[in-house]
Amino acid sequence: MEPSSGSRDAGPAVTPVAAVLPAGGSGERLGGATPKQFCAVQGRPLVSYTVRAMERISWISNIIVVVSPENIETMKSIIEKYGHKRVVIVKGGITRHRSIFNGLKVFVENEFSNHLLQKPEVVIIHDAVRPFVEEDILSKVVMAAKEYGAAGAIRPLVSTVIASAADGCLDHSLERARYRASEMPQAFLFDIIYEAYQQCTDYDLDYGTECLHLALKYCKTNAKLVEGTADLWKVTYKRDLYAAESIIKDNLSQQVCVIADVKEAVAQIGFLLHETLKSQIEAVSISLSKNDSRLQNIFSGQCYNFVCINDKKYAIQETQQLVDMLEKSDLPLLYPVVLISMHLDISENISFSIGIEELTRIKKFAGEMKKKNILVYGLLIQYKDHLVLQKIVNSAAALIMALIKDRNPELIGQLLVA
Amino acid sequence: MEPSSGSRDAGPAVTPVAAVLPAGGSGERLGGATPKQFCAVQGRPLVSYTVRAMERISWISNIIVVVSPENIETMKSIIEKYGHKRVVIVKGGITRHRSIFNGLKVFVENEFSNHLLQKPEVVIIHDAVRPFVEEDILSKVVMAAKEYGAAGAIRPLVSTVIASAADGCLDHSLERARYRASEMPQAFLFDIIYEAYQQCTDYDLDYGTECLHLALKYCKTNAKLVEGTADLWKVTYKRDLYAAESIIKDNLSQQVCVIADVKEAVAQIGFLLHETLKSQIEAVSISLSKNDSRLQNIFSGQCYNFVCINDKKYAIQETQQLVDMLEKSDLPLLYPVVLISMHLDISENISFSIGIEELTRIKKFAGEMKKKNILVYGLLIQYKDHLVLQKIVNSAAALIMALIKDRNPELIGQLLVA
Repeated sequence: MEPSSGSRDAGPAVTPVAAVLPAGGSGERLGGATPKQFCAVQGRPLVSYTVRAMERISWISNIIVVVSPENIETMKSIIEKYGHKRVVIVKGGITRHRSIFNGLKVFVENEFSNHLLQKPEVVIIHDAVRPFVEEDILSKVVMAAKEYGAAGAIRPLVSTVIASAADGCLDHSLERARYRASEMPQAFLFDIIYEAYQQCTDYDLDYGTECLHLALKYCKTNAKLVEGTADLWKVTYKRDLYAAESIIKDNLSQQVCVIADVKEAVAQIGFLLHETLKSQIEAVSISLSKNDSRLQNIFSGQCYNFVCINDKKYAIQETQQLVDMLEKSDLPLLYPVVLISMHLDISENISFSIGIEELTRIKKFAGEMKKKNILVYGLLIQYKDHLVLQKIVNSAAALIMALIKDRNPELIGQLLVA
Repeated sequence: MEPSSGSRDAGPAVTPVAAVLPAGGSGERLGGATPKQFCAVQGRPLVSYTVRAMERISWISNIIVVVSPENIETMKSIIEKYGHKRVVIVKGGITRHRSIFNGLKVFVENEFSNHLLQKPEVVIIHDAVRPFVEEDILSKVVMAAKEYGAAGAIRPLVSTVIASAADGCLDHSLERARYRASEMPQAFLFDIIYEAYQQCTDYDLDYGTECLHLALKYCKTNAKLVEGTADLWKVTYKRDLYAAESIIKDNLSQQVCVIADVKEAVAQIGFLLHETLKSQIEAVSISLSKNDSRLQNIFSGQCYNFVCINDKKYAIQETQQLVDMLEKSDLPLLYPVVLISMHLDISENISFSIGIEELTRIKKFAGEMKKKNILVYGLLIQYKDHLVLQKIVNSAAALIMALIKDRNPELIGQLLVA
């Protein structure tokens, strides 16, 4: 789900590029006390997603996050917790433009950091609350900024725009096709946008919001407009947080790794399950004992879902072994990992039952794993008749898909039955 | 979650009001094959939510839904399935304006329905893909339309609007504070908007989208602009469907009804559970045997979540009795009802266990209930020691909240353990 880090040839080559992320907003439109950039999505603050979207691109040298003074400590702890690199925190001003200006100053003045950062040729300006920005559009605006001096992503208008008269009545409506919504990211030759901010009146610094406008007004630079994709949208309202959560869950549930031993019964179930899941999402199947290196590849491929088929009823050796490996990877750092511990009961015993001790053991294990951001669920497959095996595997696959898609932390440690 | 039907004094009194819902869009921005108004949210097409938002308001006499010819049968079956009243389906034109015009014609011409509908004084025009419209804003635009001839809901712009030059560069940006996004609902004196459509050029009918603009251009009517709330937004992209789904789930999970018998153990658990849930959402607690009429009130209060505490381990008499009553109500028609069948095991038996037969029975029962749009989940409370009872009730409450919030149809019939 995370594209591989941009290679230097894919990006705008050797141009030194930095990014400034204004993250000083108060989020009043969201209707909550927490500014939206700090709202948790899958347990992680939104701003961390945006920082991550930037830092995975190798050709962006520095990421300047501008936050209001009261959030500096919060931002520091986010950077530490999620291991973000190449980030500098800068104290924001009282308006958006003043914050962005502060962010730019770290490359020119000594005021905001211990040492001057190397001045970039091009600077990207992007909102902390637009977490789904892709390398493609960043690359496009940077290259357009190199050529035109300034560039910004645009989108078609969703609603007609109207002007109201002083009496609160319609004055006129704009012809929708002639106008565009100005979105982020935007990019500028550093010298142009810095010059614009230096020339800028207090009125513009206090009431303006649009960087492209400053470049035009103070430097006569007509920005190149670049059509962006729908995922550039800005998290503004509570419904946008819901949408962000769903999109992230959806992205996380695109891939699953089935871990099955080579022993007969387990291998057979593993094969059937893998085939069944494969018809719905990307699924890989491996045997734990022999595939350490393959599992490492799967980790670095950012797979966040694992089904571990244990060969003995309620034994969790295989699951435990996988947990040890997961802990060494940095997967659980960025997103909760779903780990479904699957147990087979192929006994002929008609009076099959689940003891409370077994349930308690799974719950306890899941509780411990939760602290490590690994969500463990139990799944029992019980069958006596091989003829119904495919039916039970289908049912197991449906439960697995549901657990993966929901990632519900309250249901951890439960033993579901296929 | 559904406000009570508007009373006549709350609405714009005796003015005859009708509503036209253009629902002919193709949904290409959503990126799916199904037009967005027909996409399912909690199993029900979006357009049904919007129709419901209109029909619960008693002072709206007729609801005209305009759909493209290929969707007329689909729309008919939606109206039948969800029992919508006062709805007339009209065949749409090839553009939005032509569709709305067709919708208005049913009050004037015989072309579109078997009998002429009574011409309203005011007509509301609202998008089928804005399901969260409230009576308050509808009432406001109708009253403003009576006074000014036309009125429409507006919202602040989320992004700056810019004009591009022919070369794809920025021409100028609009001062955000001076402009507004024109949203829906809008309302018009019928004679004004009908006159505007009659005068309208083919160019406007084919390329325009804004009814307020037609009223201004052809009837010199400057619409009154009314500030709307954030929930008027239009379902446009896939992320909006995610948001709609989350908002609806959130609304549905605001209230729970705990059903407990008066027998000692059950009553005690029922009391504790009710108290614990009450700290999180609205919770009512009743005893089934004596409270038929109170349960009817709860049904009509649109409560979609029930926890039924059965006094014998795995017996489901109480649950079955509730199901019978639910079936007679029309709750499961509009939304899936969550029914958590709770079982107590307060035996001293250390070797407590769950037999596969019991699991199978719950699964089978849940499978049958699913067909009736009732989602049944099992929840087991097992305790020997009264000292830990509150802890177990807390755990049960957390599971209940998770099940209610998720409403996951794949997990029905599972027996969770608190």
